Amino acid sequence: MNTYDIIMKKRDGHILSKEEIVYMVNGYTKGEIPDYQMSAFLMAVYFQGMNHEETTMLTMAMADSGERLDLSAIQGIKVDKHSTGGVGDKTSLIVGPILASLGVPVTKMSGRGLGHTGGTIDKLEGIPGFCTSISEEEFVNQVNEIGLSIVGQTANLAPADKKIYALRDVTATVDNISLIAASIMSKKLAAGADAIVLDVKVGSGAFMKTLEDARLLAKTMVAIGTLAGRDTTAVITDMNEPLGNAVGNVLEVQEAVECLKGNGEKRLMEVSKVLAGYMIVAAKKADSFEEAIKLVDEVLSSGKAYNKMKDFVVAQHGDASYLDDMEKFEKAKYSRVITGKDLFIANQESLEWTSAYLIACNNQEIGMTSLVLGGGRETKESEIDLTVGIRLCKHLGDAICASDEIAVLYGNDEEKLEIAFKRFVKAYTLSKSNVFDNKIVYEIITRKDIDTSFSD
Amino acid sequence: MNTYDIIMKKRDGHILSKEEIVYMVNGYTKGEIPDYQMSAFLMAVYFQGMNHEETTMLTMAMADSGERLDLSAIQGIKVDKHSTGGVGDKTSLIVGPILASLGVPVTKMSGRGLGHTGGTIDKLEGIPGFCTSISEEEFVNQVNEIGLSIVGQTANLAPADKKIYALRDVTATVDNISLIAASIMSKKLAAGADAIVLDVKVGSGAFMKTLEDARLLAKTMVAIGTLAGRDTTAVITDMNEPLGNAVGNVLEVQEAVECLKGNGEKRLMEVSKVLAGYMIVAAKKADSFEEAIKLVDEVLSSGKAYNKMKDFVVAQHGDASYLDDMEKFEKAKYSRVITGKDLFIANQESLEWTSAYLIACNNQEIGMTSLVLGGGRETKESEIDLTVGIRLCKHLGDAICASDEIAVLYGNDEEKLEIAFKRFVKAYTLSKSNVFDNKIVYEIITRKDIDTSFSD
Repeated sequence: MNTYDIIMKKRDGHILSKEEIVYMVNGYTKGEIPDYQMSAFLMAVYFQGMNHEETTMLTMAMADSGERLDLSAIQGIKVDKHSTGGVGDKTSLIVGPILASLGVPVTKMSGRGLGHTGGTIDKLEGIPGFCTSISEEEFVNQVNEIGLSIVGQTANLAPADKKIYALRDVTATVDNISLIAASIMSKKLAAGADAIVLDVKVGSGAFMKTLEDARLLAKTMVAIGTLAGRDTTAVITDMNEPLGNAVGNVLEVQEAVECLKGNGEKRLMEVSKVLAGYMIVAAKKADSFEEAIKLVDEVLSSGKAYNKMKDFVVAQHGDASYLDDMEKFEKAKYSRVITGKDLFIANQESLEWTSAYLIACNNQEIGMTSLVLGGGRETKESEIDLTVGIRLCKHLGDAICASDEIAVLYGNDEEKLEIAFKRFVKAYTLSKSNVFDNKIVYEIITRKDIDTSFSD
Repeated sequence: MNTYDIIMKKRDGHILSKEEIVYMVNGYTKGEIPDYQMSAFLMAVYFQGMNHEETTMLTMAMADSGERLDLSAIQGIKVDKHSTGGVGDKTSLIVGPILASLGVPVTKMSGRGLGHTGGTIDKLEGIPGFCTSISEEEFVNQVNEIGLSIVGQTANLAPADKKIYALRDVTATVDNISLIAASIMSKKLAAGADAIVLDVKVGSGAFMKTLEDARLLAKTMVAIGTLAGRDTTAVITDMNEPLGNAVGNVLEVQEAVECLKGNGEKRLMEVSKVLAGYMIVAAKKADSFEEAIKLVDEVLSSGKAYNKMKDFVVAQHGDASYLDDMEKFEKAKYSRVITGKDLFIANQESLEWTSAYLIACNNQEIGMTSLVLGGGRETKESEIDLTVGIRLCKHLGDAICASDEIAVLYGNDEEKLEIAFKRFVKAYTLSKSNVFDNKIVYEIITRKDIDTSFSD
């Protein structure tokens, strides 16, 4: 077996064996296969693809390249959740306490992430005192005690993925379904949960722009999880506009708390409840999705979920009084209100209008607005400004008039606020008539939807 | 402009600009673009191809990456010849003296090459005393005096090609028409000749296995040469069996001398004369191909071409008496005759036959036989055994019976001779009826056959 032959085999469209895939992953991780051969291989995969079986073997090889978390000391069925990422996605902060309050252990290792806002742990660090770096032992103990812990990734999980991703990132080989699925699932498998619920985002603010691509990614990941013996479900949800009202780190924590208090934005609550529902079913705490949703509604209305959030914050040394009185949170120095008139001016043809509907949003641009304000990382070394961000007052499908508040931008730098304003107002498309289909959950993909005989 | 965007642009099937191609070639040659990005780029080119215009720009950028030979001190139109390589191809040794004897200056810089036999300069070193490393000044003087010089490549010609080729060689990105054409033509353009005649081989012993591929390569190279302002012609010739009777370094020199003495094997002479004919026309020493062939016949029958070969050998310090009396050449220690019976035994189904036709040959295997005997290089460091090789007594289409001599293998190691024998006897396909079409020159491609508007 040699690298050249494996590159050529994939280049020529053949199906690789388990041994060949393991040879490539291990050889590259150990530094025996040079970058230049791996990048040629990845480009060949980009063009020729991998079938479900190859993708699963790639995932397993990457998952096996480092430690696998041992969660056996935690009682119950451990359910992990993963989102492919989008603008304003704070569902982990809502779903975690809901599940924990229902006795489902939630063990979340989260990255900091690059992009328009920080990752879940960056957001949590907006709560004074909150500590995201605790030992594996404390992590396990906390989950056994209160049912929930969210920490930064400390373990050496899937180092092959880390090395391969860095190479893909500079060789234009990122956007391939098999490679994306293997990258996500290798970390999920190594993180040790028994069941996995995936939130695959689709739309202008997501990596997958079309439902077809999202469905393919979802099916690929469910196939991998299933073949790896994990109960895996994927929910395809909308990312054509930000999820909920808040974009930005502290702003998103505040919104998540509002949701747990029972005042959540409709679409955000719908996604959170659907994810929680499937996680509860996977954890065998309910016999059906409908029953699970009833349980979710109960812990939300009884305040159990909100109280669990406070227990969780306290357990990780955060000051829970901020949750009760959110006025205490540090605020950005400046804010700027965006009105309907601002949008009319930015959209030349609507200059004479007095009212309109928001029918489309370049959600990636909304994300860029947050990044420009300082809410995200442009490079791994960037410092995040936790207080900045966007609060939306209107959503797609809403009618607006000139005097309406559309959104408020929060920033600590007037110049950045001005740049952000200019990007934001151009991100929306207006229309005289409402043609927006306000769908939020598109599809559920379970093992029944995929061919686990893997013969394509 | 940045490397990532250029990789992605080609990956997505777009046409690159001159600036982008120059950026990649120069950046890589200078070490500013790392191997891993270049190999991803090359794999993207492998899948998406390059049009004639891109390929020409790639070639020019590679040709400009080092020195360009200045042949202006040589009078007349300089014509270069290049063969894409095959088994038993010694046409340079025949064509060179023919042209020089007709007053066409021949300036040949030749590589040593990897493969079943050495390159032209390895072969010439089989003549005692022959020196292939002379200064550029001596080279120019010799061509002005006797019209012909063949030396090892000394100048820093197309270093970009050297570096890119080495990378392609380990990343399975060799076999792409644009990359092959650019590699060949960049060195030809840098070598400074006014006109170029290309011998594109096709068949089981050639890099191009089908006439379609060979034609595409030929057209691509003629397009590049034409756009670069060089009179370029390509001749597509057969490589389904070795060219001529000899395979091996000294054996091939001897055969070339026999050809110049007027005793050449038919197919070998046909290829040599066609190449010489087009080179003479390109050098404007004849108005038509037919007239050129008459001139070739004259210098062969008059002995002028043979005498020029001797002048050439003497000029490069070789002992020309070996040419007059070829028995003087050093011989291999052992030889082994292969009979028709050996072929019948190796081809199970023909065990009972008494006669058959040779209808096909795995010519690459014949090349491997020569390599096994020690006649070629497996790695750049390998030493070539100049005396070993194969002399063929039969060709495709010939009828053979059990007692016929098919070939003689020459070696200096009995064990290697045995291995070579086993490979050789299996390389032929026998049949009761003769179905072999004994074609040798398939097509001529000139600038008229290509679209130099380059708009595909």
